[in-house]
Amino acid sequence: MTSFEHSLYYFYFVVMISASIYFFILSRKPKSVPLYEYVLAMMITSWSGVAYLSIALGQGFIESSEKTIFFARYLDWVVSTPLLLLSLALTAMYYETKKNKVLIASIIAADVFMILTGLIADFSPDSLKYIWYSLGLIALVIILLITWIPLRKIADRHEHLSKHYKRVALYLTIFWIMYPTAWILGASGIGVTQGLVDTLAFVILPIFSKVGFGLLDVHGLRKIKT
Amino acid sequence: MTSFEHSLYYFYFVVMISASIYFFILSRKPKSVPLYEYVLAMMITSWSGVAYLSIALGQGFIESSEKTIFFARYLDWVVSTPLLLLSLALTAMYYETKKNKVLIASIIAADVFMILTGLIADFSPDSLKYIWYSLGLIALVIILLITWIPLRKIADRHEHLSKHYKRVALYLTIFWIMYPTAWILGASGIGVTQGLVDTLAFVILPIFSKVGFGLLDVHGLRKIKT
Amino acid sequence: MTSFEHSLYYFYFVVMISASIYFFILSRKPKSVPLYEYVLAMMITSWSGVAYLSIALGQGFIESSEKTIFFARYLDWVVSTPLLLLSLALTAMYYETKKNKVLIASIIAADVFMILTGLIADFSPDSLKYIWYSLGLIALVIILLITWIPLRKIADRHEHLSKHYKRVALYLTIFWIMYPTAWILGASGIGVTQGLVDTLAFVILPIFSKVGFGLLDVHGLRKIKT
Ligand SMILES: CC1=C(/C=C/C(C)=C/C=C/C(C)=C/C=O)C(C)(C)CCC1
Ligand SMILES: CC1=C(/C=C/C(C)=C/C=C/C(C)=C/C=O)C(C)(C)CCC1
Ligand SMILES: CC1=C(/C=C/C(C)=C/C=C/C(C)=C/C=O)C(C)(C)CCC1
Repeated sequence: MTSFEHSLYYFYFVVMISASIYFFILSRKPKSVPLYEYVLAMMITSWSGVAYLSIALGQGFIESSEKTIFFARYLDWVVSTPLLLLSLALTAMYYETKKNKVLIASIIAADVFMILTGLIADFSPDSLKYIWYSLGLIALVIILLITWIPLRKIADRHEHLSKHYKRVALYLTIFWIMYPTAWILGASGIGVTQGLVDTLAFVILPIFSKVGFGLLDVHGLRKIKT
Repeated sequence: MTSFEHSLYYFYFVVMISASIYFFILSRKPKSVPLYEYVLAMMITSWSGVAYLSIALGQGFIESSEKTIFFARYLDWVVSTPLLLLSLALTAMYYETKKNKVLIASIIAADVFMILTGLIADFSPDSLKYIWYSLGLIALVIILLITWIPLRKIADRHEHLSKHYKRVALYLTIFWIMYPTAWILGASGIGVTQGLVDTLAFVILPIFSKVGFGLLDVHGLRKIKT
Repeated sequence: MTSFEHSLYYFYFVVMISASIYFFILSRKPKSVPLYEYVLAMMITSWSGVAYLSIALGQGFIESSEKTIFFARYLDWVVSTPLLLLSLALTAMYYETKKNKVLIASIIAADVFMILTGLIADFSPDSLKYIWYSLGLIALVIILLITWIPLRKIADRHEHLSKHYKRVALYLTIFWIMYPTAWILGASGIGVTQGLVDTLAFVILPIFSKVGFGLLDVHGLRKIKT
């Protein structure tokens, strides 16, 4: 890694911790948005920040002559993506007194499976890499189906919520599709983009899909309630 | 591994994915059996299929001159056995509006512990292997005690359910006892059965204890309700 | 390890298993204290006993010329400390019909994070060790803040419970502060105390913070209810 890439990872850490503090401050005046929305946003950003800190410190990746595997990314994702989906699902079920646990468990199971396949793919030889990658894509399709069919149906029960949910779900969908794209183009996949471009992708994307998502979701909900 | 063994693992993968699709189709006409029964059966079979796929692809095991450790089996079990027990417990509590979470957590804790001891035993030298194996057996006894005492008592509150539960629990008990038996006879234990026989055991047993169990449970519940 | 240290680990195993059996016997006459309090105490002690057994058997640590890393300690903690905090939180919410899940999830998340940082610190070179250690300390501060502010407020709603909770929380606070202290002085940290003293610390401390804590909590609750 170049020292510029190092700086990028430190920069990411600072952004994430600042976001976490921001969500904490926001939670002091929750405006009748339930506490868990803030707690989730705080957990997602601070966990991700620390995971990338490990990369900045030189620990969260394995460098070989052929390629570099940033395993800390998967450590980040395996915790933060379930929390993001939990956050999304709870937004859809905002007015339900009994949350649908089966839907939540299903979407999270598909998600953890997706991240695992990505990790295995990254450690696999080229001949097997794309098998695991494809299995991960299937899981992503399942996640998006749950997002857009049963969860959306639940959100649709309330007019104002419906609009907010569709906005948040669309935002999530767009960014989540970019991850496997960046992955396959980058060092983990065919390797068109490497080094700095690869790093940039995985520094910029999560800022949008974690901090941006959290801001959109929390501020949207704060407006609905008032 | 011989190429016949390889084919067996691919065969297993196909069986499990087919079963998963079958449970999905069934879930489209749930007949008032709650959705989670289907979701659990789908998760169990597809997870297990993918775990064995990793063996078929040559990744899910470690081969040394002395013995082969199929660590993917434990990866399979550590997810699928808790889900099987959850399925069993939810069947017992079918008519309870408040599920007894303490019982569910206890039986799953004992189960995860059992699988872990098996994994450690498999990686341990002969002198320590049987200590871990015995600890696993104790955990299995605890699982069966919970199955047959408190869970059964809950199922007994309703006549029709009681019969169904006893059938399902007996089926599970019989197959689960065969696992440590096959383990101790096979390459992981004293090594009486090795190679093909060992592989056959761990391909046939889970078809019964996952697909068979799921069919028995789901179809039984569908009949009760009508 | 000297053979005396070995004996200490076996001794610990026996103490923990005995404690677990004791809590089991107590649970047969629960005196209207809910079952989960006993189940938690049993899980904590037996899990910890088995983790230390792995050290006694010579498996739960990695010895190098420079230092010994007892990774089984983290395996113990990563399960037992969340259960201890769950136990504490459920004591605070003893009379609440709806337990506050957000608080429970937050305190457990901070705790798992703390244990992970300790594990990473132990495997890190000296230059990075203290960064991870400091992050762990921050997590400990968050745990104690949740213990003494929101949880205490919940317990304060009932006079008798309030006294009991404060006693239990103080006990926990004191012992939990000793862990990072022993860690930093011992082989994992600067290495002032090594070998026997280090072993003694991590054998005596958990007896108090697991068995002692369980006794204090369960017996206190049994008295409140009568
Ligand atoms: C489908 C697929 C992937 C998808 C990853 C995604 C969707 C990650 C999302 C991460 C987020 C949102 C992080 C937080 O900001 C992998 C694992 C790259 C490779 C395997 C196939
Ligand atoms: C008691 C015991 C074992 C039991 C394993 C069992 C009971 C596995 C069940 C697996 C199933 C049901 C898989 C799904 O089909 C081990 C781990 C072999 C070895 C340690 C002692
Ligand atoms: C703050 C901190 C630590 C705290 C550990 C604690 C508080 C452990 C408690 C263990 C218990 C209570 C075990 C059960 O008896 C570590 C991980 C040593 C090092 C990193 C910083």
